[in-house]
Amino acid sequence: MHIKEEVKENMEFSGAPGHHPEGNSGKKIMDVSEITKPYQGPHPLTVTHRVRWGDCDPAGIIYTPKVLDYAVELVEVWNREVLGANWMKLNFEMGMGTPTVRAEVDFISPPAPDHEIISEIRVEKLGNSSITFLINGRDESGAEIYQARLVSCLIAQPDFKSIPFPDEFRARITAYRQACGDT
Amino acid sequence: MHIKEEVKENMEFSGAPGHHPEGNSGKKIMDVSEITKPYQGPHPLTVTHRVRWGDCDPAGIIYTPKVLDYAVELVEVWNREVLGANWMKLNFEMGMGTPTVRAEVDFISPPAPDHEIISEIRVEKLGNSSITFLINGRDESGAEIYQARLVSCLIAQPDFKSIPFPDEFRARITAYRQACGDT
Amino acid sequence: MHIKEEVKENMEFSGAPGHHPEGNSGKKIMDVSEITKPYQGPHPLTVTHRVRWGDCDPAGIIYTPKVLDYAVELVEVWNREVLGANWMKLNFEMGMGTPTVRAEVDFISPPAPDHEIISEIRVEKLGNSSITFLINGRDESGAEIYQARLVSCLIAQPDFKSIPFPDEFRARITAYRQACGDT
Amino acid sequence: MHIKEEVKENMEFSGAPGHHPEGNSGKKIMDVSEITKPYQGPHPLTVTHRVRWGDCDPAGIIYTPKVLDYAVELVEVWNREVLGANWMKLNFEMGMGTPTVRAEVDFISPPAPDHEIISEIRVEKLGNSSITFLINGRDESGAEIYQARLVSCLIAQPDFKSIPFPDEFRARITAYRQACGDT
Repeated sequence: MHIKEEVKENMEFSGAPGHHPEGNSGKKIMDVSEITKPYQGPHPLTVTHRVRWGDCDPAGIIYTPKVLDYAVELVEVWNREVLGANWMKLNFEMGMGTPTVRAEVDFISPPAPDHEIISEIRVEKLGNSSITFLINGRDESGAEIYQARLVSCLIAQPDFKSIPFPDEFRARITAYRQACGDT
Repeated sequence: MHIKEEVKENMEFSGAPGHHPEGNSGKKIMDVSEITKPYQGPHPLTVTHRVRWGDCDPAGIIYTPKVLDYAVELVEVWNREVLGANWMKLNFEMGMGTPTVRAEVDFISPPAPDHEIISEIRVEKLGNSSITFLINGRDESGAEIYQARLVSCLIAQPDFKSIPFPDEFRARITAYRQACGDT
Repeated sequence: MHIKEEVKENMEFSGAPGHHPEGNSGKKIMDVSEITKPYQGPHPLTVTHRVRWGDCDPAGIIYTPKVLDYAVELVEVWNREVLGANWMKLNFEMGMGTPTVRAEVDFISPPAPDHEIISEIRVEKLGNSSITFLINGRDESGAEIYQARLVSCLIAQPDFKSIPFPDEFRARITAYRQACGDT
Repeated sequence: MHIKEEVKENMEFSGAPGHHPEGNSGKKIMDVSEITKPYQGPHPLTVTHRVRWGDCDPAGIIYTPKVLDYAVELVEVWNREVLGANWMKLNFEMGMGTPTVRAEVDFISPPAPDHEIISEIRVEKLGNSSITFLINGRDESGAEIYQARLVSCLIAQPDFKSIPFPDEFRARITAYRQACGDT
């Protein structure tokens, strides 16, 4: 285990970007029961990346920030597949958002172009309005490539204050954790 | 202070990418006294980013991994300006490398397009072959936007094993820390 | 001159993304006379990039799509500085948009990390609702690095149909071209 | 057909990056008969992208340069699968390179997050040392999203001068074109 097990308590995300002059104030939060059918895929959900030439730097290995980009993609896919609401729907139909408030990445072994990385995502912790993901990337032999921990916070527009996860979301997250053997 | 103060001890970076069939085995490590003249700029070194349209996602705020990219740029500039050896020189003339082994980022307030971020970089800790950077990004009013901690490891090619910082590097780093008031 | 001088006539941009359920239909097009004061900078406007380590690929030179990213940044800055309306304002306050409909790039000499590229942007052609930019990137000695031609189209939300440039925009563009010696 | 059918004649790529102090001068060009077995996949080769949240900008549609990145990925995959030599092998074992010398992109209809783009790649023209790719991206209904033309040049290290395609490469390219119905 490369990432220490502490998580920040009382995660708060208070910074409204304030760039939309009218915000999304006219959007009411949708009934989350309208979201898509339950996730039926493997537990934990996995995404495979084949490292691209353009993902790597002149040292011939993956450029550091690209690893975080891979990890964030896991969270993006997880929201769509497991939570049942992709980020477009969550932001523009449901009036919510899930900004990342903290990221930790351990770079264990650097992949080169055409290397395959199999990443899996688990929910390490579910708070009132925060959720902590643990993402492990391994090569085809199972050797560790990176490990990332990402903490997101559920917020409501237009003021971007954190809100508790709705029951439907909480039920899905709990079911996912159980199916992953994490509770 | 958003990032906890623990640092991993005995940082080790053992993963040789192994993609260059002959590696750089023919390169001897240069005399580091040949590096450029001492850094004369401000302490701490700062870089200002104006957030670009393409750095932001459909939520209208900076896309999470881009913040790490900004922070890594601080380390890139610091290597060039303070250590006196940019990453091309370090990798292809000196037979070394400084892979990032761990990154932590706290996303405090999300910037939108055209927002300015002033980032400064300090050396939080200097180990035998590892170095820990603390990078703070603030807006023009001084309000915090993000904080990142990046741990790099000095390695030697072709086997990518960690090596102690050469004396010339260590002297420069120590001088930088002192000028920043960090020791 | 590396890019052939033909431009597509009757540029049309008809593809509404249609992802915002309600679009921006509630936004009226602002009076463009409210935009910022006239551009006072150099003609042509220039932006200098120092090629970053992460902009380059394992061949040690800039990764091809990154050159287009530099060129698009010129257009972004030009919109903000010369047109007086950055893309946030144009999209979210004025109910318009300027999607790129065509790009051409000639890659003349590939830069490596830390190379400086000085890019300048000129308006090659102004149509009814389309504008053609010619962007030249050179190194410090004046040697050509790339040349790009980008064609944008002014559209109005929510249906994303092309609209004629408002008089205030047209006056600014014409003044810019004259000051660049291009008319 | 959105891209005009002219191609630059006598494509020349003369800009050696010159950043590797010793270049790859010690590498002899490998016998290309050692490359992998012939391509057995579909003609034309296709790659499907699901547009990511981070590929899009605040307008909610794909950020312009990302489309070129998708197109370049097609060329990367084509080199690996059809030519039988990925860019690592081509650059670091065979002492060659295939820099892009020109790109043209028509942006026909802008995709949003989670949209699928099916891109196919054809060889439009094979010169002495240049090759012109035509890449078409369509959505699931077959509607055009973008079209790109990319011209690459085969070069030899360390001086980066263009060289004729070796017979083995030429044979593979010709077979691919025939199987695509393009000759």
